[in-house]
Amino acid sequence: MAYVNPSGEFTRDQRYIATRITADGRDGYPVEPGRYRLVVSRACPWANRSIIVRRLLGLEDVLSMGVCGPTHDERSWTFDLDPGGRDPVLGIERLQEAFLARFPDYDKGITVPAIVDVPTGKVVTNDFAQITVDLSVEWAKHHRAGAPQLYPAALRDEIDSVNEVVFKDVNNGVYRAGFAGSQEAYSTAYARLFERLDWLSARLEGQRYLVGDTITEADVRLFTTLVRFDAVYHGHFKCNRQKLSEMPVLWAYARDLFQTPGFGDTIDFGHIKRHYYEVHRDINPTGIVPDGPDLSGWLTPHGREALGGRPFGDGTPPGPPQPGEAVARA
Amino acid sequence: MAYVNPSGEFTRDQRYIATRITADGRDGYPVEPGRYRLVVSRACPWANRSIIVRRLLGLEDVLSMGVCGPTHDERSWTFDLDPGGRDPVLGIERLQEAFLARFPDYDKGITVPAIVDVPTGKVVTNDFAQITVDLSVEWAKHHRAGAPQLYPAALRDEIDSVNEVVFKDVNNGVYRAGFAGSQEAYSTAYARLFERLDWLSARLEGQRYLVGDTITEADVRLFTTLVRFDAVYHGHFKCNRQKLSEMPVLWAYARDLFQTPGFGDTIDFGHIKRHYYEVHRDINPTGIVPDGPDLSGWLTPHGREALGGRPFGDGTPPGPPQPGEAVARA
Repeated sequence: MAYVNPSGEFTRDQRYIATRITADGRDGYPVEPGRYRLVVSRACPWANRSIIVRRLLGLEDVLSMGVCGPTHDERSWTFDLDPGGRDPVLGIERLQEAFLARFPDYDKGITVPAIVDVPTGKVVTNDFAQITVDLSVEWAKHHRAGAPQLYPAALRDEIDSVNEVVFKDVNNGVYRAGFAGSQEAYSTAYARLFERLDWLSARLEGQRYLVGDTITEADVRLFTTLVRFDAVYHGHFKCNRQKLSEMPVLWAYARDLFQTPGFGDTIDFGHIKRHYYEVHRDINPTGIVPDGPDLSGWLTPHGREALGGRPFGDGTPPGPPQPGEAVARA
Repeated sequence: MAYVNPSGEFTRDQRYIATRITADGRDGYPVEPGRYRLVVSRACPWANRSIIVRRLLGLEDVLSMGVCGPTHDERSWTFDLDPGGRDPVLGIERLQEAFLARFPDYDKGITVPAIVDVPTGKVVTNDFAQITVDLSVEWAKHHRAGAPQLYPAALRDEIDSVNEVVFKDVNNGVYRAGFAGSQEAYSTAYARLFERLDWLSARLEGQRYLVGDTITEADVRLFTTLVRFDAVYHGHFKCNRQKLSEMPVLWAYARDLFQTPGFGDTIDFGHIKRHYYEVHRDINPTGIVPDGPDLSGWLTPHGREALGGRPFGDGTPPGPPQPGEAVARA
């Protein structure tokens, strides 16, 4: 949900539902295989994090996933991809119904990712930043054999500090540029974004991943913004100093992850483009979706293996997506 | 002026004022040094053609030039760059005044380039395609020593036939993509544009210029679109299969021309970006002008000398721009 303050600066409403699903169930929602449903849209970068983490950790059999369509109206994301327009597990047409089931007067954004308690049909949480951390830490008992350590205790401080600046300047920075209400607010966001991308390029020039020598939560969070960069943020959000494909280190880093099982196989560029260009009529009044860019470069060699690193640490890559969850390739 | 027909297709109103300034003065306006004023905006690709041709042919001393600001309102281009907001020669604030002086009921677009008869203050013509040809042919007696042959008789058929497809698919094609009123009209324009750019890339791979081995009118016309491609058409008009800088042959060809006296020295990227992004509120409601792209690549080596060619044929390059006409570099 977009808010622009009087100075023209976009500020994200960060009051999410703070209830957590934990191993000890202290918020009333204990980790329990089969009980919850993760609701996502493949278009959304915040939801994309949880899709990737669920895949990497092999939680598909214990936490099911409902996928909303790429576009939504003023009120809610909808299950328009499902037969009859209803999520087959929750039986609802609009994600909003799960929010209202728990909070009848809920008046904040209906956002993805959200986790819904299947027996009651009530939303538990939409706190995207906490969701992926909890999938790593609280759901550890149910991870697949060979699941990676995405949020290892020894590296949490460093991961958190990278995540903080990446969130401010990059993940949310592209929105601050795109939804700026003044030239000055836009330029400030643009400058901070590209300064941070330069900083990230320098950091990643000699090391394969952001923190340590394996894939972590920090890589997941940066990836979901980078993978959308040329397809939407470059043009639609005016983040156009360069394309990602013109920033050699970040482009190779992003391709490396894209070609890693659990990353690229979660990406639906069609959904991503339709979402941004069709939904944001305030900055794209025609709703016309660009036919570009040419995305064939994502599968080209990246050469990052030369930097060493152990993508999954002592673990192994995930297998292919489950049959019903594979993204259709055009 | 933009018109969208019921199928959503952008159609350019091509009813320009057909009066011509000729050597024999058959339309009542004979070629005469000091009598006329060329009115342009550096933002506009159609006007840019005439600025380049006037420079290449060395007509600065016989045909003066008035420069409108980069933006305009619904009614007219304006002389807002001049002291007091008035053109110092014509004494008018709005180009529209010169159109109304000749046609009191003029109801079509007030467009640049336009040539105004200084003694009467009346517009003579705004027929941009004819203007540059006439500068080459009808004004020949007043060309500088060493002026190139931009429209040589022996090559006119070939130049005309290249110009025709370049106009339809490229010069006007970017507008057809950007102002399309439907997804289908957009996609048709996008496909034709990039097919034609591929065709041009193939043509220019082994030859330095479009027709013959010297710069002609055909190169001028393609250049004024290519030079705007990454700065505005790629994002603003959704012409985003690739950036120009990602199409190696066309990018080198465009840089070669940009670095040729008379081309790059007419380009004001600031004016270009402000015009498109501030004026077209129907497709950019915020009016925010992107800070990108990084344009430093325009001055990098292009390597096209290796293809041979004689840029100015038996002639010579023009000298530097006249003192009052140089573009300020940021």
